[in-house]
Amino acid sequence: MSPKITTELLKQLRQVMKSPKYVQEPVQAYIVPSGDAHQSEYIAPCDCRRAFISGFDGSAGTAIVTEQHAAMWTDGRYFLQAAHQMDNNWTLMKMGLKDTPTQEDWLVSVLPEGSKVGVDPFIIPADQWKRMSKALRSAGHDLVPVKENLIDTIWTDCPQRPCKPLITLDLSYTGVSWRDKIVALRSKMVERRVLWFVVTALDEVAWLFNLRGSDVEYNPVFFAYAVIGMNTIRLFIDGDRMMDPAVREHLQLDSTLEPEFKIQVMPYGSILSELQAVGAGLSPKEKVWLSDKASYALTEAIPKAYRYLTPYTPICIAKAVKNTSETEGMRRAHIKDAVALCELFNWLEKEVVPKGTVTEITAADKAEEFRSQQKDFVELSFATISSTGPNGAIIHYKPVPETNRTLSVNEIYLLDSGAQYKDGTTDVTRTMHFGTPSAYEKECFTYVLKGHIAVSAAIFPNGTKGHLLDSFARSALWDCGLDYLHGTGHGVGSFLNVHEGPCGISYKTFADEPLEAGMIVSDEPGYYEDGSFGIRIENVVLVIPAETKYNFKNRGSLTFEPLTLVPIQTKMIDVNLLTQKECNWVNDYHQKCREVIGAELERQGRHEALQWLLRETEPLVRVQ
Amino acid sequence: MSPKITTELLKQLRQVMKSPKYVQEPVQAYIVPSGDAHQSEYIAPCDCRRAFISGFDGSAGTAIVTEQHAAMWTDGRYFLQAAHQMDNNWTLMKMGLKDTPTQEDWLVSVLPEGSKVGVDPFIIPADQWKRMSKALRSAGHDLVPVKENLIDTIWTDCPQRPCKPLITLDLSYTGVSWRDKIVALRSKMVERRVLWFVVTALDEVAWLFNLRGSDVEYNPVFFAYAVIGMNTIRLFIDGDRMMDPAVREHLQLDSTLEPEFKIQVMPYGSILSELQAVGAGLSPKEKVWLSDKASYALTEAIPKAYRYLTPYTPICIAKAVKNTSETEGMRRAHIKDAVALCELFNWLEKEVVPKGTVTEITAADKAEEFRSQQKDFVELSFATISSTGPNGAIIHYKPVPETNRTLSVNEIYLLDSGAQYKDGTTDVTRTMHFGTPSAYEKECFTYVLKGHIAVSAAIFPNGTKGHLLDSFARSALWDCGLDYLHGTGHGVGSFLNVHEGPCGISYKTFADEPLEAGMIVSDEPGYYEDGSFGIRIENVVLVIPAETKYNFKNRGSLTFEPLTLVPIQTKMIDVNLLTQKECNWVNDYHQKCREVIGAELERQGRHEALQWLLRETEPLVRVQ
Repeated sequence: MSPKITTELLKQLRQVMKSPKYVQEPVQAYIVPSGDAHQSEYIAPCDCRRAFISGFDGSAGTAIVTEQHAAMWTDGRYFLQAAHQMDNNWTLMKMGLKDTPTQEDWLVSVLPEGSKVGVDPFIIPADQWKRMSKALRSAGHDLVPVKENLIDTIWTDCPQRPCKPLITLDLSYTGVSWRDKIVALRSKMVERRVLWFVVTALDEVAWLFNLRGSDVEYNPVFFAYAVIGMNTIRLFIDGDRMMDPAVREHLQLDSTLEPEFKIQVMPYGSILSELQAVGAGLSPKEKVWLSDKASYALTEAIPKAYRYLTPYTPICIAKAVKNTSETEGMRRAHIKDAVALCELFNWLEKEVVPKGTVTEITAADKAEEFRSQQKDFVELSFATISSTGPNGAIIHYKPVPETNRTLSVNEIYLLDSGAQYKDGTTDVTRTMHFGTPSAYEKECFTYVLKGHIAVSAAIFPNGTKGHLLDSFARSALWDCGLDYLHGTGHGVGSFLNVHEGPCGISYKTFADEPLEAGMIVSDEPGYYEDGSFGIRIENVVLVIPAETKYNFKNRGSLTFEPLTLVPIQTKMIDVNLLTQKECNWVNDYHQKCREVIGAELERQGRHEALQWLLRETEPLVRVQ
Repeated sequence: MSPKITTELLKQLRQVMKSPKYVQEPVQAYIVPSGDAHQSEYIAPCDCRRAFISGFDGSAGTAIVTEQHAAMWTDGRYFLQAAHQMDNNWTLMKMGLKDTPTQEDWLVSVLPEGSKVGVDPFIIPADQWKRMSKALRSAGHDLVPVKENLIDTIWTDCPQRPCKPLITLDLSYTGVSWRDKIVALRSKMVERRVLWFVVTALDEVAWLFNLRGSDVEYNPVFFAYAVIGMNTIRLFIDGDRMMDPAVREHLQLDSTLEPEFKIQVMPYGSILSELQAVGAGLSPKEKVWLSDKASYALTEAIPKAYRYLTPYTPICIAKAVKNTSETEGMRRAHIKDAVALCELFNWLEKEVVPKGTVTEITAADKAEEFRSQQKDFVELSFATISSTGPNGAIIHYKPVPETNRTLSVNEIYLLDSGAQYKDGTTDVTRTMHFGTPSAYEKECFTYVLKGHIAVSAAIFPNGTKGHLLDSFARSALWDCGLDYLHGTGHGVGSFLNVHEGPCGISYKTFADEPLEAGMIVSDEPGYYEDGSFGIRIENVVLVIPAETKYNFKNRGSLTFEPLTLVPIQTKMIDVNLLTQKECNWVNDYHQKCREVIGAELERQGRHEALQWLLRETEPLVRVQ
């Protein structure tokens, strides 16, 4: 990896920072955040502005360019990568280290008095604007919105914003029509006494209209906004995709409909002016509901007194609770995904053990190949983490030619992968050894497994927040002085983003919403030994009602049901570290894998993989 | 309990709300919060203004009086009590119920346009002022500070503010001199670049100067403020207690000292004007450090740009980590406390079983009597919760003649009590049966015990926050569909407040500071069956380093050591619900009770109580 030479680009950027063509007054600093206008986790190439100006293309980082300096803030996952990818025009600001200044403090220390700091108001979330603006103002500077994105003005070969065809999802996938979703949303709006709701997150637009797209890799979403009134529906979307007869039919664009369900299609770029018009027309006590993470530009379009901001939107919360059609779809998707992984692991055993010719990259490619053979496969749900030996200890590892290792019988192999199927989204991690694991590796694996089971089998009262379960996953590791430095689980979309709010299982998440039946999260404790190996065991699990002796005085009991049905390598388990209850859990789980996945392998005529499944699911026996 | 008749009082209050003698402009509403000027949990009689105006004397509640209405907000613990104690001038606002308006919403709904809402700026914490003021302003009203407390103007027989003698604590109790505490505080001030620190919480003043008082029942504190500069120490305190030679000597008031350790003693009432003078004399970048819970009046004394507010002060954090002298003192206090409880339980067995003449009140009195026989006993650390049968299910029960029950061989008895000794503070709950408990009672008790052990024996990495341990206490209950609706533990002071921050073990506490060796918390899971019984098992535990196999890569391991050493009634335990590990924990714990408390009972010649201890600590045997 050689760094990107940015001298000329920075020179150009510093010119436009002073150019009256783009800025009313010169700005002494310009902030280039990571995100897009929808605060997406995964972004399209045209939105990779920070990578363009700096060379650093990790998933998190904020660049700030002043007349004299260029600095990049990123976190521990990316210190090495950022240092490699950036030339010496850039100063790396290592977030999380004690001596690293915050962006605000740094700006205050380098800016001349009374400076203007520019930022694209469409990219910066309103809550972040508020914090930064306050800090700058108290030091005598000003944060100013710069309408035209200054990176775009110098990015001559910027790729076009994607505008790919849409997929319509019928009731058999979604369970609820978009009309009924609008009705439910409006009833939430009545409850909170708001007149308008602005949909800014891409997965929320997709979910609301039962549409999917492919504008962003791994996330089946499309660039759009929506503004829902009590009698109006406005969808802001570009391209000729609204000319597709299937989409027109799906949205009933050409039908005579009750006016309150008539969708007005408007250009993507007109959201701001339309929202400003809404804002200008409000009477006292009329409110507009927005996420507090919506962009500063859209939030400002509504006068402050008329804004109703919440951390989670009603769509985010409704989307998290899957209905029967969605959970059935998720089940199907996970069965197909398990078939693909049984094929893969069977193939790996044949290739790795005698030949030693499989690399992290070829293994990942093979996994994709097997998945793509399954019905309704669309794409992967994230970049496959295929890692062996020391690479396994890099939690967000993605194999590239420079780091690619060959799988061997001497190293632990960790595969964290998933796919988008039209009926559901998967995300599964298995850790395997193709030779003979050491006692220490088995010990660590078994603690991780105990943590995985402790969450998966946990029973808890209705209304419990996921973060209260996080320590269950760590208890067995903690007893021996081991831990892992990531959360235990995240929400999973239904043929949508593999990471979604508002629920999760993490020591870090305090703003999570209570778990309820129908929510789907991952359960993925791990253990990482720097320079040696990584272990993670991940299932996607569905929140279901539980049977308990006393049922919390009718408050109701919940537990989890694993949707992922892929064998957990018994060779890695030190059975004597398991309790009888844990041992039974593994055996019951493997019995279910045999029944459900075995039947599907049979049906698909995949006999060799079936034999592999049967071998891998032999019951554990605990020596008393 | 008959309600207090408040018609006349409310009439008088409404008059002063309009009187130019007290308010610049008439106020249309007046808020009477619960607290005192130091945001104390326990308050002195002269600060019980809300109880005076309404009759309701629970520990939490806010009264608001308008020209037409009088309303009282309180939580579920007090719905019944508040309804009994208030006459029909008052509307009870049941907090936590869905239809109950917030104070702000209610005010907006009842006030005429452009109203003024008054409050004593010394009583309302700054963060609460901010929230309420914002809500009122956005509805066109104004929150205004009313200098003179309007309740005090009509409270003709208001008791005097207590001003009792002080106790000085020497190094053998505190381990660190007040001078060294000032030095440490100043180094924190340098680190955060602040020039001044304002001490507003009573226990923080007491801790800083190694002084104790008795101005507030149960809390060994005294009314005072302190303002610490880099070269000055100002102590704001009233009365002739500064004339006491022991205090003068302790504070070195008459010695020739380096000027930076010279304490200037000033009148308690001069804090505001002195702080305003400090505020007026600040140059840019000079900051004053305050708790964000400090009163609005004191916070406003410092211009906004010069304030440095944090949720926990450096004193609060330093105070929580006990040094060797303090932990040794706490150990001694807990040994004496255990002796008193062994005497009590032995006496109860003799009295309750054959005679049936003991009531909740006489049992509580007897507990106090036994405690008061112990060396350095000062007072109780809170009102004893002595409850039998259905009263045990009322979590904050305190026996009064109207509710007083006789202990019997048919009911579970719950005793939650503690004391202040000059060397430490105790807080212990034991639940006992003097006859034969039912299988269900034993089952519930055993789940609570399992939860207690799960926390007490937990091993966790250095830096873990207490709230991450809360679910460990619930897991056994959850498995059967049972739960308890309170947190699992709170910080405990060292001859100071029985409840103190910044650490704790609760599903509700998210702002807790990480646990570290030397912190002391309670471990008190419970189970409550409305109308039948209550169970709680509480020890005070010390955070200590743990030995683990892998020691978290040198991050360090922590666990708890019980300071409370009082037998847990084995009669209530269903041994077969315990794992072997849990069974061993109980036996080891009881062995330690025998060794430590047995020796002390022997030393004090309390032979009958010693026999009781030996009977109650017979090892459990688990049938495999």
